[in-house]
Amino acid sequence: MARKASIIGGGVIGGGWAARFLLSGWDVAVFDPDPQAERKIGEVMANARASLPALSDGPMPAEGRLSFAKSVGEAVQGAEYIQESVSENLGLKHRVYAQIQEAAPTTPIGSSTSGFKPSELQEGAKNPAVIFVAHPFNPVYLLPLAEVVPSAKNDAKTIENAKEILREIGMFPLHVRKEIDAHIADRFLEAVWREALWLVKDGIATTEEIDEAIRMGFGLRWGQMGLFETYRIAGGEAGMKHFMAQFGPYLSAEWTKLMDVPEFNEELVDLIAGQSDAQSGHHTIRELERIRDQNLIGFLRVLKDRDWGAGKILKDHDKRRRATMPAPSPDTAQPMEMARMTVLPGWIDYNGHMTESRYLFASSETCDAFLRHIGADVAYVGTGFSYYTAETHIMHLGEAKLGDALTGTVQVLHADEKRLHIFIRILKDGSEVATLEQMLLHVDMKAGRTASAPQAILDRLLPIAEAHKALSRPAAAGRHVGQRKG
Amino acid sequence: MARKASIIGGGVIGGGWAARFLLSGWDVAVFDPDPQAERKIGEVMANARASLPALSDGPMPAEGRLSFAKSVGEAVQGAEYIQESVSENLGLKHRVYAQIQEAAPTTPIGSSTSGFKPSELQEGAKNPAVIFVAHPFNPVYLLPLAEVVPSAKNDAKTIENAKEILREIGMFPLHVRKEIDAHIADRFLEAVWREALWLVKDGIATTEEIDEAIRMGFGLRWGQMGLFETYRIAGGEAGMKHFMAQFGPYLSAEWTKLMDVPEFNEELVDLIAGQSDAQSGHHTIRELERIRDQNLIGFLRVLKDRDWGAGKILKDHDKRRRATMPAPSPDTAQPMEMARMTVLPGWIDYNGHMTESRYLFASSETCDAFLRHIGADVAYVGTGFSYYTAETHIMHLGEAKLGDALTGTVQVLHADEKRLHIFIRILKDGSEVATLEQMLLHVDMKAGRTASAPQAILDRLLPIAEAHKALSRPAAAGRHVGQRKG
Repeated sequence: MARKASIIGGGVIGGGWAARFLLSGWDVAVFDPDPQAERKIGEVMANARASLPALSDGPMPAEGRLSFAKSVGEAVQGAEYIQESVSENLGLKHRVYAQIQEAAPTTPIGSSTSGFKPSELQEGAKNPAVIFVAHPFNPVYLLPLAEVVPSAKNDAKTIENAKEILREIGMFPLHVRKEIDAHIADRFLEAVWREALWLVKDGIATTEEIDEAIRMGFGLRWGQMGLFETYRIAGGEAGMKHFMAQFGPYLSAEWTKLMDVPEFNEELVDLIAGQSDAQSGHHTIRELERIRDQNLIGFLRVLKDRDWGAGKILKDHDKRRRATMPAPSPDTAQPMEMARMTVLPGWIDYNGHMTESRYLFASSETCDAFLRHIGADVAYVGTGFSYYTAETHIMHLGEAKLGDALTGTVQVLHADEKRLHIFIRILKDGSEVATLEQMLLHVDMKAGRTASAPQAILDRLLPIAEAHKALSRPAAAGRHVGQRKG
Repeated sequence: MARKASIIGGGVIGGGWAARFLLSGWDVAVFDPDPQAERKIGEVMANARASLPALSDGPMPAEGRLSFAKSVGEAVQGAEYIQESVSENLGLKHRVYAQIQEAAPTTPIGSSTSGFKPSELQEGAKNPAVIFVAHPFNPVYLLPLAEVVPSAKNDAKTIENAKEILREIGMFPLHVRKEIDAHIADRFLEAVWREALWLVKDGIATTEEIDEAIRMGFGLRWGQMGLFETYRIAGGEAGMKHFMAQFGPYLSAEWTKLMDVPEFNEELVDLIAGQSDAQSGHHTIRELERIRDQNLIGFLRVLKDRDWGAGKILKDHDKRRRATMPAPSPDTAQPMEMARMTVLPGWIDYNGHMTESRYLFASSETCDAFLRHIGADVAYVGTGFSYYTAETHIMHLGEAKLGDALTGTVQVLHADEKRLHIFIRILKDGSEVATLEQMLLHVDMKAGRTASAPQAILDRLLPIAEAHKALSRPAAAGRHVGQRKG
């Protein structure tokens, strides 16, 4: 039987928790008096279903069963874990805990509160030992962080058990050892929020300028290393102490309105430098730089693929560069050079070699450029017709490595109304690293069958096919796998 | 002739600027009296060469020429742009500007300063109109942000020209309209830094816990949307005003040591809500959620591939799930099921279909699992031997779409000491979407030639090959591209 979680409060946060449990195979009972709760949770679930499975490399468990309870008592019946995400109102939370513990006095209750300390949540409870903070971050179904904050009244076993359940649903429980208002992360968010309000109010920057200042710079860093590891690198070979010697003095400068600062003495420097060593000392600064850079490239490539944020800048930069370069005008008297590529970090395996499927990727890029050249571009595909690859033969002849510059050429072996038989060479410094023979069929996508290409495309394709009849036929064309050479 | 930039101060920041210019094809002259400057810049360049080109989808320009000048005057000779990155010491900066303007009185001078305002930099200068702030973020060669801050003394043309040069080298110039201490981004960094120092000093959290609180949660968000766009989504359908009504009251709470806060009145709320509409109002909240989620998946997948930060959590989660699933024990009396995969968002094209090269990727995953099964795993490759694919024939028989569950099976057609001839089927609901015939060769990687597989592998492989002799030979085996069926 599936395990059961109970979600009290079904807004964006409660819905995110429900989604994590359901997609991990748990049954979930939700209680929320809002008549819109079912719709709202449904919307969060739709987002979660469209995204969370993409993080897994294995099959997902069968989705759990979602139900909506008519009372808190009904919702918590048989639940192994309860997550409370009602409004940030302490009196309301206390009333909810009383109702929960009426029906389920020993079940662990995590609260999504960002503002209250566990000792405040526990006040007046029948069984305070099972109530603690489990503070998530929106979108709950994707971001791993949950700050788990106990008070002295919690027993260690309850907390360890809760952390295990959070790991079970893919989260990262950060055990906050001392309770404090706003836990840890929200102290930073609040500090930044206040500073941002001042900047907007004083007319220094707009919301958009502030967002750009974050996501084009330090925001990218913080997705992969936090504050201290980033600054450890900034300190360079001289390390964290050196960084602090540089940055420390600013604390007594008068340029901020946030003035109550800790004394920047030897003791604090040693404390931080020591903790930073324990955290990151197993990597050299050089290693950390490389790790950081590869992470940043990954992030930036993601944004480039999605044409968003910093990725837009990269796209614009490519466009700007292309504009200053001569346009390709492939010569039809020889195999036509249709694509130039650089072997990117995501293309290589743990040995540093280009991974097998990327040879077909490079070939597809070459073939796509050729299809665009004869008029079968994205706009054409939008009309419901396309060239589909039916069959491919690949010869692996050499190895490409990170950073290698590759070119892709196309030789047309045969073309008619429906068929396009081509031979693609992937070259590195003029030598073949792979050749690919392909049969493409012109397809009516809606009808799901082959169809004649329109005259406009044939007018561009057939003269190339005619010119390429003069080229010598590649030895690998017509070859089957395992055929003897010669 | 290449354009020339001059870099005064060759530390990590100056080196990062040099790298951006050089890799954009500019010549660069560096002046830094530090005898280690050449080595330090060389190290930054090595990092930049290993990463920056991976952001470009076109060929990179030929790298510019790097030279080290013996004086400021020599370094700025013939430069079109000068970037100053000396220590944060105003007197030193003034002396450097005087030396620069002795030799090149009208050349634009951007300063990397994070602390000084442009009007401070300009004090006492011969030509203050060409001195401004161009504040970058480490690593300068990857992060696009440069805060460009002029004072009233700069002429608009100098600033526009500088912004154009920054775009030219792939940066995002953020024009800060009013000069202010620490510009924009560093006000946030400083606020977070102070809060972090308190947390460490008070023993609430270690540097590592603080870093996890950042990179497992809001840090991931900020690489793609900033503070306000993120909170706009958190406000949900009710929007930014609703979010502020919820979050605003905290400003008067007593839980932080950073107490000087702007009055949270109607006017401020309207100002922010209006700016947020202008910034993000062309997307619905639902659209913003989907954009955010896809960006986050991209980031998380990058980190998972690199086994770093939040990606480690995902890997551990997969491992944990696998441990609860029955181990595969493929039956050798039929083609062996070696892999199960889900079609992920990164695998599909703009039409929603699995992209061509991903069929080979799915096949590689299947083949890799088979190789692991016979003992040719990563550890084995570490000994210097491996199976390389020499030749592949692919039949495309159906279409896979986002979320489809695929399985990959292996049938051994022939195996001997050196050769492994296999037939892979990629199945969706039991039907073939693609078949792949492959010839793999056992290779001595160091010698670069084929070699006999060791007995331990043959002992596992040959019995499978023997058992598979009983299977009927696939019709597509031995086929060449374009061969008639039948």
